[in-house]
Amino acid sequence: MKSLEETTFAIIGLGLIGGSYAKALKNRNAHKIIGMDRNHIVSLMAKDEGYITDIADEDPSLLQGADIIICAMYPGAFVSFVKDHVKYFKKDVLLTDVMGIKGSIPDEIDRLLGPEMDFVPAHPMAGREGKGYGQSTSRIFEGANFIVIKRKENRPENVAWLRAIALQIGCGRVVELSAREHDGIIAYTSDLPHIMAVSLMNSDSMKENTKYFIAGSFRDATRVADINGTLWSDLFLLNKEPVIAEIERLETQLEKWKKALKEGDRKTLLVMMDEAKKKRRDMFYGKN
Amino acid sequence: MKSLEETTFAIIGLGLIGGSYAKALKNRNAHKIIGMDRNHIVSLMAKDEGYITDIADEDPSLLQGADIIICAMYPGAFVSFVKDHVKYFKKDVLLTDVMGIKGSIPDEIDRLLGPEMDFVPAHPMAGREGKGYGQSTSRIFEGANFIVIKRKENRPENVAWLRAIALQIGCGRVVELSAREHDGIIAYTSDLPHIMAVSLMNSDSMKENTKYFIAGSFRDATRVADINGTLWSDLFLLNKEPVIAEIERLETQLEKWKKALKEGDRKTLLVMMDEAKKKRRDMFYGKN
Repeated sequence: MKSLEETTFAIIGLGLIGGSYAKALKNRNAHKIIGMDRNHIVSLMAKDEGYITDIADEDPSLLQGADIIICAMYPGAFVSFVKDHVKYFKKDVLLTDVMGIKGSIPDEIDRLLGPEMDFVPAHPMAGREGKGYGQSTSRIFEGANFIVIKRKENRPENVAWLRAIALQIGCGRVVELSAREHDGIIAYTSDLPHIMAVSLMNSDSMKENTKYFIAGSFRDATRVADINGTLWSDLFLLNKEPVIAEIERLETQLEKWKKALKEGDRKTLLVMMDEAKKKRRDMFYGKN
Repeated sequence: MKSLEETTFAIIGLGLIGGSYAKALKNRNAHKIIGMDRNHIVSLMAKDEGYITDIADEDPSLLQGADIIICAMYPGAFVSFVKDHVKYFKKDVLLTDVMGIKGSIPDEIDRLLGPEMDFVPAHPMAGREGKGYGQSTSRIFEGANFIVIKRKENRPENVAWLRAIALQIGCGRVVELSAREHDGIIAYTSDLPHIMAVSLMNSDSMKENTKYFIAGSFRDATRVADINGTLWSDLFLLNKEPVIAEIERLETQLEKWKKALKEGDRKTLLVMMDEAKKKRRDMFYGKN
């Protein structure tokens, strides 16, 4: 396992997450960071700021030097990038990604790779509003959980290498699980809150004077309604069965509310609220 | 209209909102602030800290001195407080409250009051997590919208007086509307986000290892699931018809999501997300 100071990275897509990787790796003195972006201006800016050492936009053969390639692009673009560029990859490259949803992508990628190349799907549980290089910061990794998908195809030393890097750039914990488990959990913890925020904002009840009645609860509940639709339509569609199941579990809860309200059943309301309060306190302030 | 420096207030209930009123009024040099709380220790603390000048817990006849009485208690306790104490009220007292939901309460209160007494329902659009005097702060009024319910029964000079006080303690704008309009809007902007947060937390998908997959979207979407169940069961039940209607409007949106996902309809997903993004940006960063 090479140290960070000996490792050459390539980061494909210098947006919010890719840019943050570049900054975090640079801060930890990675040997070389090759950057690539469909917007050449972004690559030039990242190089000018010193966060990447080389630009592969016009010379993809530079990718041959990369020990690790981090694909930080939209899911829809990832497979075609690998298809077009695998000919430049080092023969034992460690390929990873940053996508919150995996779906059938690991299998599709495996079919494109050479026998010694290894795709380890992963992503930090990190993100923030907005998008693009301008919003990127090494701080998004600080204390974050780093998720690695367990696959029988992967070489253990590569998984260990990626774990080590995640901890070195500031992640607090590395969690391994199967792609199927992963996508189901993400449907609940990430896809569903985004759908709820968009749905609340789009309710027919939104009127001109609604804005005078906004307090913290509405503000927080709709924060992520300011959403990158192109990215998220990829993510939602890749994960649609688990997402639909999560919407239905939410609807089950909403039906309990409607029933209790219709019946004036104060006791059930109290039980539901107390349960939620306890769970949330355990989650955010409890022991781990 | 008396100035703040000439006005004696009574604040009934020195919790999060009542305590904040005491602090804000004291900071603006109100003449006298009489405090009353079912927990006498809280009254003693508020007096010790200098935010109230008198305690009426053991001598409710002190309420006779109050020009304005602010009832900052749970809805369920408000009516019985007035019933028991109206005999001590100044004959032309201005009575107001802080409840987010009004329901039938204004009519019930009117029936208890003397002919010259005037109940002007109102509340700041303010709040924060937690509850109790310890969480109170004059800052919750800063820039907040202050809501006044328009009622034909009220004397215009009293409404003007309350408006003036709201602006003096830091509120940014006073909005007047009917009780019916008010409760409908609050069902959407406040009740529904709380129900959504509790429902998300209570989903059957919540498991032991869910906590490793939490990022900002889930954190924000569940913040108010840490809820004061006693208070909120009053509020929800007082407003149950509008609240049920809001849950159903949310479900209409969720059904649109399920349909678009099932059909793989990326275009509809994009339209929904773009609409929500635009509305949210207009609401929080637009003009006004």
